[in-house]
Amino acid sequence: MTTKIFESSDSARSSRPLKHVKTADFEAPLSLELGGSLPRVTVAYETYGTLNAARDNAILICHALSGDSHAAAHDEEDDPGWWDIVVGPGKAIDTDSYYVICPNILGGCRGTTGPNSIDPETGRRYGDNFPTVTTLDIVETQKRLIEHLGISRLLAVVGGSMGGQQVLTWATRHPGRVAGAVAVATSARLTTQALAFDIVGRNAIRRDPNFEEGDYIDKGTVPAVGLALARMLGHITYLSAEAMREKFEFNRLQPRELDTEFEKIFSVGSYLAHQGGKFVERFDANSYIKLSMAMDLFNLGDTNDVLAANLSRSSCRWLILSFSSDWLFPPEQSRELADTLLGLGKSVSYCNVVSSCGHDAFLLEDDLPVYGELMRAFLDTMQNGIPECLEEDDFYVHAPASIFGSIHRPRMDNEEIARLVDPHASVLDLGCGRGSLLVKLLANGNTKLMGLELNEEDVLYCLQRGLNVVQADLNSGLDPFSDGQFDCIVLSHTLQAVKDVEHLIKEMLRVGSKSIVSFPNFAYHKLRRMLYEEGRSPRSNELLRYEWYNSPNIRFFSIEDFYDFCRRRDIRVHECIALDTEDGRIVTEDPNLMADMAIFVISR
Amino acid sequence: MTTKIFESSDSARSSRPLKHVKTADFEAPLSLELGGSLPRVTVAYETYGTLNAARDNAILICHALSGDSHAAAHDEEDDPGWWDIVVGPGKAIDTDSYYVICPNILGGCRGTTGPNSIDPETGRRYGDNFPTVTTLDIVETQKRLIEHLGISRLLAVVGGSMGGQQVLTWATRHPGRVAGAVAVATSARLTTQALAFDIVGRNAIRRDPNFEEGDYIDKGTVPAVGLALARMLGHITYLSAEAMREKFEFNRLQPRELDTEFEKIFSVGSYLAHQGGKFVERFDANSYIKLSMAMDLFNLGDTNDVLAANLSRSSCRWLILSFSSDWLFPPEQSRELADTLLGLGKSVSYCNVVSSCGHDAFLLEDDLPVYGELMRAFLDTMQNGIPECLEEDDFYVHAPASIFGSIHRPRMDNEEIARLVDPHASVLDLGCGRGSLLVKLLANGNTKLMGLELNEEDVLYCLQRGLNVVQADLNSGLDPFSDGQFDCIVLSHTLQAVKDVEHLIKEMLRVGSKSIVSFPNFAYHKLRRMLYEEGRSPRSNELLRYEWYNSPNIRFFSIEDFYDFCRRRDIRVHECIALDTEDGRIVTEDPNLMADMAIFVISR
Repeated sequence: MTTKIFESSDSARSSRPLKHVKTADFEAPLSLELGGSLPRVTVAYETYGTLNAARDNAILICHALSGDSHAAAHDEEDDPGWWDIVVGPGKAIDTDSYYVICPNILGGCRGTTGPNSIDPETGRRYGDNFPTVTTLDIVETQKRLIEHLGISRLLAVVGGSMGGQQVLTWATRHPGRVAGAVAVATSARLTTQALAFDIVGRNAIRRDPNFEEGDYIDKGTVPAVGLALARMLGHITYLSAEAMREKFEFNRLQPRELDTEFEKIFSVGSYLAHQGGKFVERFDANSYIKLSMAMDLFNLGDTNDVLAANLSRSSCRWLILSFSSDWLFPPEQSRELADTLLGLGKSVSYCNVVSSCGHDAFLLEDDLPVYGELMRAFLDTMQNGIPECLEEDDFYVHAPASIFGSIHRPRMDNEEIARLVDPHASVLDLGCGRGSLLVKLLANGNTKLMGLELNEEDVLYCLQRGLNVVQADLNSGLDPFSDGQFDCIVLSHTLQAVKDVEHLIKEMLRVGSKSIVSFPNFAYHKLRRMLYEEGRSPRSNELLRYEWYNSPNIRFFSIEDFYDFCRRRDIRVHECIALDTEDGRIVTEDPNLMADMAIFVISR
Repeated sequence: MTTKIFESSDSARSSRPLKHVKTADFEAPLSLELGGSLPRVTVAYETYGTLNAARDNAILICHALSGDSHAAAHDEEDDPGWWDIVVGPGKAIDTDSYYVICPNILGGCRGTTGPNSIDPETGRRYGDNFPTVTTLDIVETQKRLIEHLGISRLLAVVGGSMGGQQVLTWATRHPGRVAGAVAVATSARLTTQALAFDIVGRNAIRRDPNFEEGDYIDKGTVPAVGLALARMLGHITYLSAEAMREKFEFNRLQPRELDTEFEKIFSVGSYLAHQGGKFVERFDANSYIKLSMAMDLFNLGDTNDVLAANLSRSSCRWLILSFSSDWLFPPEQSRELADTLLGLGKSVSYCNVVSSCGHDAFLLEDDLPVYGELMRAFLDTMQNGIPECLEEDDFYVHAPASIFGSIHRPRMDNEEIARLVDPHASVLDLGCGRGSLLVKLLANGNTKLMGLELNEEDVLYCLQRGLNVVQADLNSGLDPFSDGQFDCIVLSHTLQAVKDVEHLIKEMLRVGSKSIVSFPNFAYHKLRRMLYEEGRSPRSNELLRYEWYNSPNIRFFSIEDFYDFCRRRDIRVHECIALDTEDGRIVTEDPNLMADMAIFVISR
C-alpha cells in the first residue's frame, strides 16, 4: 500500500549516468535573449527510431522543468524514461514510424550546458553567475541540434508544461521548421498563482545557508533543505486536490517510515519528504533556479492582441491539450491559446481531457487512452494525411437528436445541408459530432473546415479523420471568432438543445456570412394532434427514444415560430427547406404542418 | 497603486501591545486532549458591548491561525482590529446589541498561554516543548473564560477558518452552552492539499538553522526565513487564483521596492516578501507550529458516520457559510457539514457566497453585503425570534415561473398547497424562493420546516424571516436526507424547470411520506389551440414573459402525462387539484383540458 502511494511521475528517475546519451558541441557563441552570450554550448540528447530518407519524420520532444533527455528506455535493460508510456514502438509517439529526438534543455543539469558547466572564460563553474536563459534561448539550442542532425522541418514538436512553452516558441519563432505543434498542459504565460509558488521555491533555495550564493558544489555542500522544500511545494501543485485525497486520506496519520529530518506525522508529509529528498539526489539547485525562472519569464502575450500577434506567425497544425483538474496550468489557459488560434483561422484542435490527476496527468497512465490517442491521431494524420473515411460513419447521427428520436439513414439533413454549401466556402460546423458533415464537405472540395464539439469521444473521432475540431460548449457562444470569419456556419439539429438561443443565433450571424440552421418542426401534424386530441406531450410514434421528462431537447418551436423569430430581428431568410424525414422527401405544401424538419439559410 | 495591492487582511495588524486586552488567570491545571497538562493558563481577551441582565446576549468570536483578541478597534484612537468590518456598533455583529468576547487562543502569542510563556515547573519558556494542543484544548480554555465571565449559554459562537473549527467543537462538545453556531469558511477536517501546505510551512520553520529546536528566543535569534516562507505560502492559499491575477497581472514585472533579501523580480514576489517580513515582526514561529498543528489535527469525522455522530450531539441553530472561490477550505466541505446536519434534521442554514476573494473573503469588505447580512439576519432572529412577516411578501412568485408568465395575487397554488399540509407535519420546500409558503405554514402551526433554494438573495431573505434555508441545486437530488425524513415535501411550480425529473421525483418519494407537486398544464385548451390552429409554440395570451427561445421552462407536459408517469412507476396519486388560475377557481370537469395548473399529492 505504502509503496503504491509513493509512486509518482518522478519515481522512475535515476541519478545514474544515462547510457544512450549523445552530445553535440557547438563552438559558436550563443547570444541570449536577455543579453550576454554563452561562448559555447553542449547539448545532450537521445534519439529513438530512424530518420527516414525524406528526413520528414522527426519529432522533437521538449521536456519540462525537472526532465531530461531520457524520454524513454532504449531497451529492456535501460533505465525507465520519464515518458515511457507515450514514447516507444507502437505507442502514441510511435518510434516505429517517427524519429524522436529529446534533448536536455539549456540550463539543465543532465548533460546540456547549465550552471554546473565550466565557464571556459574563467575555468570555474558558472554557478549562480550562469546567465538568465529564456525559453527562446532553450529553443535556439534545440534548433542548433536539429540543424546538426540535418533536419530542416520537424514533423512535430511535442511538449507538456514548460515543454509546452518550448512548443509555443518553436511554432511562433520558427514556423517554417514546424509542421505540427502539440502543446500539452501549458499556457501563454504562468498564472500569478503558479508564479508565486515558484518564487517561494526559489526563496527557499536561495535563503538556505548552504546555497553559498550558488557556489555550493565548490564549497562541498548542497542547499538540500531549500531544494527539497521547493520540490515539495512543486509536488503539491502537480497533483490535483482530488488525487491527493485519493492517495492520502485513507491513512492520513500513517506516515511511511523514512530516514528524514522533515516532518513525518502525516502520510502526505512523509510522501513530500520522500519526494523532496529524492529530488536533491538527482537535481541541481542552480538549474532549478534558472529553469524555473525561464518558465516564469515566458510570456507569449499578456494581452489578447499581443498573443494573437505572436500566434499569427505560426503556420503549423496545432493540437492543444489540457486536463480538467490541472490547476497549475488551468484549462482556461489552453483554451485561451485554442481560442486565439481559432480567431486567427489557424488549423487547431483542442481537447480538455477529463482527468482527476491534475497537472501530472500527461505523465501518468490514467488518462493515456484519451490524451495518448488524441496525440496518436494527430501525428498519424500529420504524417499520412486524411484517411479514407468509412461510408458507415455517415450514418452516424450526432446527439442530441430531436424529440422525434428516429434515425434516418443516410441522414437527410446532412445531405441537404452539404448541397447548400458552396464548394469554395469556409465552414464552421457547430456541434459537429463525429464530423459526418465535415467529411462530406471535404469530399465536395471544401478545404477550410472547422468543427466545434463538446463530446470528448467525438473530438477524438474527428481527429482520427484528420479534421480540425475544438472542444467547446455552444452555450458559451462564439467569442473566439471575428466578424464574418466564415462563409458558412452550420447548426444542424442542435438548436432545440441550446440554452441561450438568441445569443447563439446572433453570434452565428456575426461570424458567418451565411448560416444554416436545421431543427425539428414542433408543429408537424402528428405532433399537433398528439397534444390537441390526446392532451399529451408530443413524442415520436416510432422510436420512443425520449419522453418529456428525459429529453435533451429543451426548446420547442415550429417553422412559423422560427420565421417569426427572424422577422422580429431583421434576420434575412434566404431559403427554408422543409423535410419529411420519415418519407425522405422535401415538403413544398404547408411545411409548418407537413414537415417534421426544417433547414433555414439565414444571414444578417 | 502599489500601496493598494499591498493591502490585505493582514495589513492592519500591528505588533504593538494592545491597550484593551484583559487577562484571566486560571490556576487549575488544564488536562490536554492528547495527554499531559498545563499547570496554569492565562487567557488574554477583549470584550465589546454590554452583557445584558439576562446574560444571554454574549457572542464568542474565535479567531483563526494568525489572529488575536483584537477583533475590532475599541475607539477611534485604537489600533484597527482584524474584523473591524464585521464587529462594531451597527455592524453585522452589532456591539450595540451583543456582548462580544474575543480571546486569544491557547498556544497563541498574543497574551494567552503559549510556547513563549514561562513553564512554571522549569522557570523557562516552553518553546518547542509546549505540548501539542488541539482545538478541543483551545475550546476548553475559552469555556473557562466564559464561565469566569458568568455566562452559562452563548447566544452564538462565530468563527472563520480555524476559528470555524472551534465553532464546530463548541457546538458538538458543549451543546448546552451554545444557542447559535456560525461556522464560516471551515470544514470537518482539512483537505490533504491544505494539510500538505501546512507541512511544507512547518518544515521551512523547523529546518531554518535559526530555529534552534525552538529555543531561538533564548539564543537571541529568530527563524525569520522559515517563518516568512511559511507565511508566503499561507498567503498564496488565502487568495484565489482570480484575486491574485487581479492584484498582480497588470504590473507583473514591477515589484515594489522593499528592503528584503527575498526575490523581488515579480510584483507578486515583492508582495509575498512584504507579507512574510511583516509576519515575522508580529508572530511567533513556535506558535505558528503549534497552532497550525492544532488545525491539521482537527477531525470532526473522516467518515459520514463519524461526522454525523459528532454533529448529532449539537442542539444549536446553525449558519454555515462558504465562499465560492475558497480553495483552502473549499465549499464542498461546508456543504458536507450542512448536508450532514440536514440529514440529522438539525436547524441549519447554508449559503455558498459567490466571491472572487478566496479563503480571505470573510476578512474582506468585497462580499460583506452578502455574508455580513446573512450573519446579521441569523443573529438577529437568534436574539429576537421570527419577525412578523409582511403581507406583501406573500404575493411574491418565485422563479422560474411557468411558460404562462402570469402573476396571480395571492398565488393560488400556495394557498391550495398550504391547505393540503397537516399542521403537525414536517415540511421540506424544494425551491422555496423567499419562503412565502413556509411563512404561511408557520402561521398554520407547522414548526419543523426546511427550505432549499438556489438563489443567494432568496436565501438571505429567508434568513431575515427566521427560516432555515440551505442553498442547493435541486438537480443534484436530495442525497443529504434519509428515507421518510419529512412528512411532506413540496415542489411548487418548479418541475417544469428541472433537468432530471425522474431522479428528483424518486428522491421526493424516498424522503417524504407525502409529496405535493404543482406544475402548469401544457394541455390547457388555450395552449393546445395555439399549437393546433396556429402552428405556434404555446405561450401566455396575457403576459408575454417567456418565449420558446428564452423560457427557463424546459419540460412540457400535461396532467395526463403526469398521471401516466405515476402509473408506470407505481406512484400513488392521492389527489389531483386542477386549477384555472386565470379565473381563480378549481376545475372539476375535464381538468386536462380546462386547467392551466395542477397540484398532485403523491406517495410511494
